[in-house]
Amino acid sequence: MSYKKGEFLYEGKAKTIYSVLSDENFVWLEFKNSLTAFNAQKKGEFEGKGKINLEITNHIFKYLQSNDIKTHWVQEMSESEVVCQKLSIIPLEVVVRNITAGSLAKKFNLKEGVQLKKPLVEFFYKKDELGDPFISDEQALVLGFVESQKTLDDLKSRALKINELLIQFFDKCEISLVDFKLEFGFDLKNNILLADEITPDSCRLWNKKTGEKMDKDRFRQDLGLVKESYEEILLKIQQNWSL
Amino acid sequence: MSYKKGEFLYEGKAKTIYSVLSDENFVWLEFKNSLTAFNAQKKGEFEGKGKINLEITNHIFKYLQSNDIKTHWVQEMSESEVVCQKLSIIPLEVVVRNITAGSLAKKFNLKEGVQLKKPLVEFFYKKDELGDPFISDEQALVLGFVESQKTLDDLKSRALKINELLIQFFDKCEISLVDFKLEFGFDLKNNILLADEITPDSCRLWNKKTGEKMDKDRFRQDLGLVKESYEEILLKIQQNWSL
Repeated sequence: MSYKKGEFLYEGKAKTIYSVLSDENFVWLEFKNSLTAFNAQKKGEFEGKGKINLEITNHIFKYLQSNDIKTHWVQEMSESEVVCQKLSIIPLEVVVRNITAGSLAKKFNLKEGVQLKKPLVEFFYKKDELGDPFISDEQALVLGFVESQKTLDDLKSRALKINELLIQFFDKCEISLVDFKLEFGFDLKNNILLADEITPDSCRLWNKKTGEKMDKDRFRQDLGLVKESYEEILLKIQQNWSL
Repeated sequence: MSYKKGEFLYEGKAKTIYSVLSDENFVWLEFKNSLTAFNAQKKGEFEGKGKINLEITNHIFKYLQSNDIKTHWVQEMSESEVVCQKLSIIPLEVVVRNITAGSLAKKFNLKEGVQLKKPLVEFFYKKDELGDPFISDEQALVLGFVESQKTLDDLKSRALKINELLIQFFDKCEISLVDFKLEFGFDLKNNILLADEITPDSCRLWNKKTGEKMDKDRFRQDLGLVKESYEEILLKIQQNWSL
């Protein structure tokens, strides 16, 4: 199918969204070179970042699709542009954690790097003005962010299934999947699809041999070699997984 | 039965706990005159507060017991002292909310005083050093604060049943039950019992006619007439509920 880029719709922190001309079922995403952290209080960018993140997501989403996970991904249009299904985004960030790090370690004063006894799914309410607060099922339901416990349970089981698949995916690249954030949405037929991206911006990824951080924490924590780490992740994926 | 006060065990923010001589199944609680807020960063006290809070809890726990809610309350020993069953306390604060206020209103930037579409149960991890963080079922389970989802579900249904009873209790006093905090523990036979206290320290209570705050928010927010409000709550309870 051929798609034509339509009008500007929305500029996010890492992507710009356009309509697709004459087809309301799709959107046109442009992956940007910008990097943000701490609810966009810290900003940066590097040349080629959009391209790398699109390519990583492309590999991962095609791998997930081949394992029966439905995603919004449709067709790459350039090195940093892709056409996706238009979804009604569920306003939850769905986080899965395998190893203690980030906000979980901070909240409970835990040492970083400890394997959890089983994967932990967390929901955060997607709302920049509120700082994306951590929420419970009951809060999501009573405040009307989702309609039913069934939807929440569905999101949890999808997230856990994706976690199993991604652990295998990164294991082959000798990378530990520490934690990651997913977003989901409903298509026009009310199916839930995986949306957004899966990249070093949205995952914590540690080199399995050296323990070195390879993800956005290098930017958050001023560890340097941000671009090089993102490139290394893509290279390892390309070496281990064919499209 | 006759009980004798044993050795000092622990001093909390609002109560001091002693053993009961020659009986390990019980503890001796002394209700203090101190008031604390914001994780004890703000401190105060007033003469007679321990006595008022004990008497309010005494009324409420006996009312709950007569409605088949098991509590740790055994026998008053003086105006500010009571013998309770010794429990292994579950490290969760169980909060029930009927109307928006407090940390919920702040977290989601909601107007105070809005009726929720149904009662909301929240868990906070009881840990002063961490500031009693809000947690989800999954965090409580994966981090091992409770053993099973069954226990969490049991706490939720007990809390909702207590909420129904307390709404009726305070309604008769022309007081709105905005929200409240409960604690639970296991007895030696692994039964779950309601523990701690139910007082204007642990509930938000608003005068049904005037909307005026009658609880610890008067202290938190420097509204004045703290002692008078606590006395008024006790008086209304005494006028409407016989022991």
